[in-house]
Amino acid sequence: RYDKVRDHEEVGMVTGLAWTAVGGVTLEIEAVSMPGNGKLQLTGQLGDVMKESAQTGVSYIRSMAKELGINEDFYKNLDIHLHIPEGAIPKDGPSAGITMTTAILSLLTHQPVPQYIAMTGEITLTGRVLPVGGIKEKVLAAHRAGITTVILPKENERDLEEIEKNVRKNLQFILVENMKEVIKAVF
Amino acid sequence: RYDKVRDHEEVGMVTGLAWTAVGGVTLEIEAVSMPGNGKLQLTGQLGDVMKESAQTGVSYIRSMAKELGINEDFYKNLDIHLHIPEGAIPKDGPSAGITMTTAILSLLTHQPVPQYIAMTGEITLTGRVLPVGGIKEKVLAAHRAGITTVILPKENERDLEEIEKNVRKNLQFILVENMKEVIKAVF
Amino acid sequence: RYDKVRDHEEVGMVTGLAWTAVGGVTLEIEAVSMPGNGKLQLTGQLGDVMKESAQTGVSYIRSMAKELGINEDFYKNLDIHLHIPEGAIPKDGPSAGITMTTAILSLLTHQPVPQYIAMTGEITLTGRVLPVGGIKEKVLAAHRAGITTVILPKENERDLEEIEKNVRKNLQFILVENMKEVIKAVF
Amino acid sequence: RYDKVRDHEEVGMVTGLAWTAVGGVTLEIEAVSMPGNGKLQLTGQLGDVMKESAQTGVSYIRSMAKELGINEDFYKNLDIHLHIPEGAIPKDGPSAGITMTTAILSLLTHQPVPQYIAMTGEITLTGRVLPVGGIKEKVLAAHRAGITTVILPKENERDLEEIEKNVRKNLQFILVENMKEVIKAVF
Amino acid sequence: RYDKVRDHEEVGMVTGLAWTAVGGVTLEIEAVSMPGNGKLQLTGQLGDVMKESAQTGVSYIRSMAKELGINEDFYKNLDIHLHIPEGAIPKDGPSAGITMTTAILSLLTHQPVPQYIAMTGEITLTGRVLPVGGIKEKVLAAHRAGITTVILPKENERDLEEIEKNVRKNLQFILVENMKEVIKAVF
Amino acid sequence: RYDKVRDHEEVGMVTGLAWTAVGGVTLEIEAVSMPGNGKLQLTGQLGDVMKESAQTGVSYIRSMAKELGINEDFYKNLDIHLHIPEGAIPKDGPSAGITMTTAILSLLTHQPVPQYIAMTGEITLTGRVLPVGGIKEKVLAAHRAGITTVILPKENERDLEEIEKNVRKNLQFILVENMKEVIKAVF
Ligand SMILES: [Ca+2]
Ligand SMILES: [Ca+2]
Ligand SMILES: [Ca+2]
Ligand SMILES: [Ca+2]
Ligand SMILES: [Ca+2]
Ligand SMILES: [Ca+2]
Ligand SMILES: [Ca+2]
Ligand SMILES: [Ca+2]
Ligand SMILES: [Ca+2]
Ligand SMILES: [Ca+2]
Ligand SMILES: [Ca+2]
Ligand SMILES: [Ca+2]
Repeated sequence: RYDKVRDHEEVGMVTGLAWTAVGGVTLEIEAVSMPGNGKLQLTGQLGDVMKESAQTGVSYIRSMAKELGINEDFYKNLDIHLHIPEGAIPKDGPSAGITMTTAILSLLTHQPVPQYIAMTGEITLTGRVLPVGGIKEKVLAAHRAGITTVILPKENERDLEEIEKNVRKNLQFILVENMKEVIKAVF
Repeated sequence: RYDKVRDHEEVGMVTGLAWTAVGGVTLEIEAVSMPGNGKLQLTGQLGDVMKESAQTGVSYIRSMAKELGINEDFYKNLDIHLHIPEGAIPKDGPSAGITMTTAILSLLTHQPVPQYIAMTGEITLTGRVLPVGGIKEKVLAAHRAGITTVILPKENERDLEEIEKNVRKNLQFILVENMKEVIKAVF
Repeated sequence: RYDKVRDHEEVGMVTGLAWTAVGGVTLEIEAVSMPGNGKLQLTGQLGDVMKESAQTGVSYIRSMAKELGINEDFYKNLDIHLHIPEGAIPKDGPSAGITMTTAILSLLTHQPVPQYIAMTGEITLTGRVLPVGGIKEKVLAAHRAGITTVILPKENERDLEEIEKNVRKNLQFILVENMKEVIKAVF
Repeated sequence: RYDKVRDHEEVGMVTGLAWTAVGGVTLEIEAVSMPGNGKLQLTGQLGDVMKESAQTGVSYIRSMAKELGINEDFYKNLDIHLHIPEGAIPKDGPSAGITMTTAILSLLTHQPVPQYIAMTGEITLTGRVLPVGGIKEKVLAAHRAGITTVILPKENERDLEEIEKNVRKNLQFILVENMKEVIKAVF
Repeated sequence: RYDKVRDHEEVGMVTGLAWTAVGGVTLEIEAVSMPGNGKLQLTGQLGDVMKESAQTGVSYIRSMAKELGINEDFYKNLDIHLHIPEGAIPKDGPSAGITMTTAILSLLTHQPVPQYIAMTGEITLTGRVLPVGGIKEKVLAAHRAGITTVILPKENERDLEEIEKNVRKNLQFILVENMKEVIKAVF
Repeated sequence: RYDKVRDHEEVGMVTGLAWTAVGGVTLEIEAVSMPGNGKLQLTGQLGDVMKESAQTGVSYIRSMAKELGINEDFYKNLDIHLHIPEGAIPKDGPSAGITMTTAILSLLTHQPVPQYIAMTGEITLTGRVLPVGGIKEKVLAAHRAGITTVILPKENERDLEEIEKNVRKNLQFILVENMKEVIKAVF
């Protein structure tokens, strides 16, 4: 059902790529903010590693707020809720790190992310982007869904060789080592 | 025992549709509010997925409050309790998402939902309505209970073909892609 | 040991009826209030369903406070403790819903419930009374204990036919569909 | 090691009686209070039923404070810690209810309980004293330890007949139906 | 590695004695305080009984503060952290009660405990010292480590007879019934 | 992937050494701070012992703040998040104690730790450094990664003899007994 690119871009929504038992899939990650006091809510049957990954992304943003041009006090005045449908399917792993972080940044900067972009990559507290698994399957899923730009960890560059030329030539790949390069690519 | 439509409409009450081991059933979802400070209480032996689904609905409302014509501060001044009888029967899954969200909206806008309407559909944070399972069984249960209007996810449209004509012609189906279409249909 | 009716009525005490492996029993439900800030304490080895049932009763009272003639602020100034002896016996199920709600209402209105009344029934958030199991066994236990009036869900009316005439003629049955009928019957 | 009566009485200390796999034993229950804000700490490897029993005793005292001549605000200004040595031995059951309640009352009224008194009995929220098991074994343990007065639930009166005359004549039994009778007997 | 007495005394550090599957060992118990608000942190893989034992010691100190010459408000202005290395080894039981209590008292009175003293004993809320197991093994471990003074529960006196004379004559034993005797011996 | 030394030093990042089923590895420990109120967040699938080790390091810093030249109030005004990638790999044990403590000290003093330094050692509350396992494997991993200086517990000195000369001569070893020696070595 997540096979097709959305027909529009929307603040707080970013397309991720997951690797499941039945192959790669695209994931529509959604984040909203509300007047509040700094609560971070994570739903969609996310496992511990995925929750820690989201928390790591939030701390990256909080500790870099000034440099990222974000109001340093956002954390005191907002509650943030991040949800990944379908709500009944368990999800885990660190590979949605940069996607979740981008969704929250989209919210906080009020800038949408183009709907033809998908991404995957583990994030660390200081914004480093670490390699992840399932690149081939994820890229195929992105291609099937009509995605035209895929953001990947630089350290996964070699994994692209396994993908057939036909698919590769229809996609633009952006290889990143740091969250700042993700930001530059999507906003 | 939930076989018959209520004889009146009441603020905070909405009829949902569930799919159980023994077929489809109707569920009377109830929500009340009390002077409080933003606590959300969920009872009726609801599983994790169902609780996350209710929380997602609440965040949808909170983040859209202004647009939905709801006092943005409702969350600071009220406690909300949502209960699904029968209290001893375990319930789970995301398919009551739009029903629970509608019950809370009914509360907050003081508008009842007509008792002859039933609905099913997963909700996301941004109000998208995702398809759910068991459409045929759920529609039959609605029909047996005397429901005349059923709200379903647009993506479940094809599932209606499995239902026999006799039943179908006695029901009005409203297919929705977004929570806003649910709101337009019931209030 | 709970075989005999108490010899007096007392604010906060109401007799319930439970259905156990060894037949029906009467339960003395007790509630007390203390200066506090809205804490609800539930003891007596109550299971999850029973705790949710008590919480549902409290929310019914809180959301209806004005209509029930109760100070709307009671929840801010009191702690309520509800206990069901014997403390070592695990108890569960929704059928003490109206009994627990009545005990708390007795506390809040300072009106005792006559000791010759016993009751059983599931309560919902909006005060509907739903049918419960074990009616025959519960009525026999009430009769043995010297109870003269039994309050039951209207939907359980047919279950009374299973009880032998001899017992039935010595008891007054009050069949209720809504908590308001319980209130009218006991205060 | 708890075989002998203490050589003095002390505020906050009361001797209980427990029934274990190896027979009856005496238990020295200790309670202390500290400037605080109403926290109740329970240690000594107490099981759930025993903890609920202590909480029930505290709520009895709080809801009856005025009548018992205790400063109604004690709960706001004190933390209470109740501990039952030996700390490594798991303990459970409701039968220390009146003993724990008496220990806390001793603290709050600054009156010691004579060291030659031991007691056993379940307490309810309204101060009723319910019967408990193991009376014979508990009384023998009290006698061995040098106790001269044993407080028991009135409903356990018949259990005293099982105890041999020789032991019985050396002990004074106080049979109680309500916590107020315990209070009258010990202070 | 804990085989040798420290070469100096230090506020907050006290040597305990534990009895493990492989014999007796000495334990360096450490406590530090920080500006805070009364939080007690316990680390070093301590089991439930050991944590309750530390809490019992803290309540003893809090309830006796005035008598012990300690600022009654310490609990409001400090956080206390007690840690028992080695951090990966699970520890449990009540026998470090007086040692943990002494470490915290050392902190609060700014008085070190001489490094040639080791101790073992269960503490109760009112400061009673109860007997513990493994006396022989613990004393041997103390001796091997170069300890010269061992504080033990009075009720363990008889256990000293099992220790060979050669060891006994090189150690001073202080037998205690109450925490006050421990305090007199170490400060 | 963590085989190579970073190409630069950065405040809050310190290289640790871990011993896994497949040999030694280097770990990039990262810490960031944010305006906050003293929350310590620990992510990267850290086990209980490792979390207690981080808490012990934080308490060491808090209780020594003045002596370490750190603003004593840091704990009231900052949240600290420490993360150890890769986020999906479970990690445990006390041997990253000095590394995590150093990362937080780097943050609080705004001084980076040279990227060619790696370290391992258990920390206690008073700053003692205790020996750890896997020294040989850890040193080899450090060497492979291009580390030139390894900080180790003094009590592990003998373990260095097992490492072949060829490796040893290319590395500087700093043997420490106390956290203060680590601080002197890295800042
Ligand atoms: Ca799908
Ligand atoms: Ca991965
Ligand atoms: Ca039913
Ligand atoms: Ca579904
Ligand atoms: Ca009974
Ligand atoms: Ca039932
Ligand atoms: Ca004993
Ligand atoms: Ca009992
Ligand atoms: Ca050792
Ligand atoms: Ca012991
Ligand atoms: Ca790696
Ligand atoms: Ca180790």
